[in-house]
Amino acid sequence: MSISASENNQTSIESILEPIQKPLGSIENRFKEYVRSDNPAIQEMVDYVFVKSGKKLRPSLVFITSMIWDSKNYDEIIDLALSIELIHIATLVHDDVNDFSELRRGIETYNKKWGNTASVLFGDFLFARAFVILSKLGNLKIIQNLSKTTSEICEGEIMQSLLKDEYEISVDKYLKIIRYKTASLIGESCRVGAVIAGMGEEAENVLYRFGVNIGMAFQIYDDYLDFYGDQKSLGKPVFNDIQNGYITLPVIHLLSQVANGKKDVFISKIKSQKDLNDLDGIKKMLDEHNSLKYTLDTANDYIRKANKELTDLKNETLKDYLSKASQFIVNRRF
Amino acid sequence: MSISASENNQTSIESILEPIQKPLGSIENRFKEYVRSDNPAIQEMVDYVFVKSGKKLRPSLVFITSMIWDSKNYDEIIDLALSIELIHIATLVHDDVNDFSELRRGIETYNKKWGNTASVLFGDFLFARAFVILSKLGNLKIIQNLSKTTSEICEGEIMQSLLKDEYEISVDKYLKIIRYKTASLIGESCRVGAVIAGMGEEAENVLYRFGVNIGMAFQIYDDYLDFYGDQKSLGKPVFNDIQNGYITLPVIHLLSQVANGKKDVFISKIKSQKDLNDLDGIKKMLDEHNSLKYTLDTANDYIRKANKELTDLKNETLKDYLSKASQFIVNRRF
Repeated sequence: MSISASENNQTSIESILEPIQKPLGSIENRFKEYVRSDNPAIQEMVDYVFVKSGKKLRPSLVFITSMIWDSKNYDEIIDLALSIELIHIATLVHDDVNDFSELRRGIETYNKKWGNTASVLFGDFLFARAFVILSKLGNLKIIQNLSKTTSEICEGEIMQSLLKDEYEISVDKYLKIIRYKTASLIGESCRVGAVIAGMGEEAENVLYRFGVNIGMAFQIYDDYLDFYGDQKSLGKPVFNDIQNGYITLPVIHLLSQVANGKKDVFISKIKSQKDLNDLDGIKKMLDEHNSLKYTLDTANDYIRKANKELTDLKNETLKDYLSKASQFIVNRRF
Repeated sequence: MSISASENNQTSIESILEPIQKPLGSIENRFKEYVRSDNPAIQEMVDYVFVKSGKKLRPSLVFITSMIWDSKNYDEIIDLALSIELIHIATLVHDDVNDFSELRRGIETYNKKWGNTASVLFGDFLFARAFVILSKLGNLKIIQNLSKTTSEICEGEIMQSLLKDEYEISVDKYLKIIRYKTASLIGESCRVGAVIAGMGEEAENVLYRFGVNIGMAFQIYDDYLDFYGDQKSLGKPVFNDIQNGYITLPVIHLLSQVANGKKDVFISKIKSQKDLNDLDGIKKMLDEHNSLKYTLDTANDYIRKANKELTDLKNETLKDYLSKASQFIVNRRF
């Protein structure tokens, strides 16, 4: 079975990234320049941050929204993108501790290499350094938005952690959690670009809503990839969420399709598939109940909502560019 | 054996706290007003923050340095003190996770009540909320100093964690660690008071150096109390540091007094006392080598250095008040 994730498969990641290659390439050098420790052991942990780069989705969005028509404030924009990426990486470092994960981006996690304690503290260190960079940047509105968003990420993750191994989650509850833990920072990555470029409050809010919607799609598609992705492309194990106790949209949908009296049977079946690491068995169930299609449809709905938000945006080049970028969200393999 | 911790035992905590009672009392209400979550489970964690208050040393220092002669900016000063206390509490929440501690301030720790995952995330949440409050306050210099200090705390704690169960630490290394993990934020608590009160850079730096020195004394005395304190007054177990693998000044001094060839024997002896939870045995060794006296002398030296820093301070009332406050650091039982 093969379902196309979106209506438009022609947008390649390269065509989106090409114009922002240069600033994206500067982030890691800027990090090396700013973040140092005179303690060699801590410096080793610092050096490990960008050994394997991620997608850099959030910096890309900062660059697209702030620079597409204007590249004054070049240095400031790179600082801003760097601090947002550091906030994101800090949450990943803590996630990996909490999930006992051993692999991220194809290499060992911090907790695997340095243990839980040093990793919790190093995550805190990265949070703090992000705010050091932001405070040098000197835009209070941005600091306020990003600290608020950081607290939302934590709230989303706490909600998620408190629902560990809970199978009967409503779709609304799931959407609220991912709104906090993922969409919020992606929304903010779009908004701050507009703030630093001085586009005015209306455009800021349009871009925030655009970003929140693609953020929702991004997380839903991420949860889809946990069943249908490829471990090598992802750089991390698949079939990982249920193993860690996180029940995501495909399974939530599956259980919503089952009559109340039969839910327990289905939950037992999923649990035994989890214990046997029987990914194919789970995928078969998801296919039979159209849960795969529902998940991708939901992701695509958010992409459509995101693009609808752009209607009022005056800058046509930016609109076109963001629209292209939004397609990448549901067409990636990693 | 009884050694007086300082030359002046007459300074009571009450006489120091009396003039700052009112703002100290406002911190918790301000917290309740600012920090809310619409998720009931997270709100429960929020409500637990001030169920048992700590010493509120850092807010007290903010109030003393900013308000003693002037109480304009009253609300801002409370916000500032609150955010510093939240940064401090966030580090404690993570410390307790890392040390598997079950008791703090006489009540169960977050990790004991909510588990490690939710506690790591809740610590992050408190960090983020501290910066939300700071960004509303709108003083970039303060945000910059406090984010830098937060990253220093993390560096100090990482250094400490990487030296777990390492007995042969030099005094210099120990002093560097506590300078980062403790003295830095106490120094900053004094400095920001001066910043917000607009005392000028010279006074800011004097107060920072004063604060760093009393911060050093504070941590050294804290490490002393882990051997000689009373569990009930402290609200946490004594003889805890070695159990957690942290080798502090009393033991570092003890080992420095032992000939090189005999070090291993002493370390084995301490380790077996640790395993047997034989606090009296360790105290006997510390007494025999004057390590207790050395530790208290070192703490008192820092108090003296702190007071020497105050020489150039023009405000006599503030000088007198800080001098009194500094005596509390090495005269407390908790």
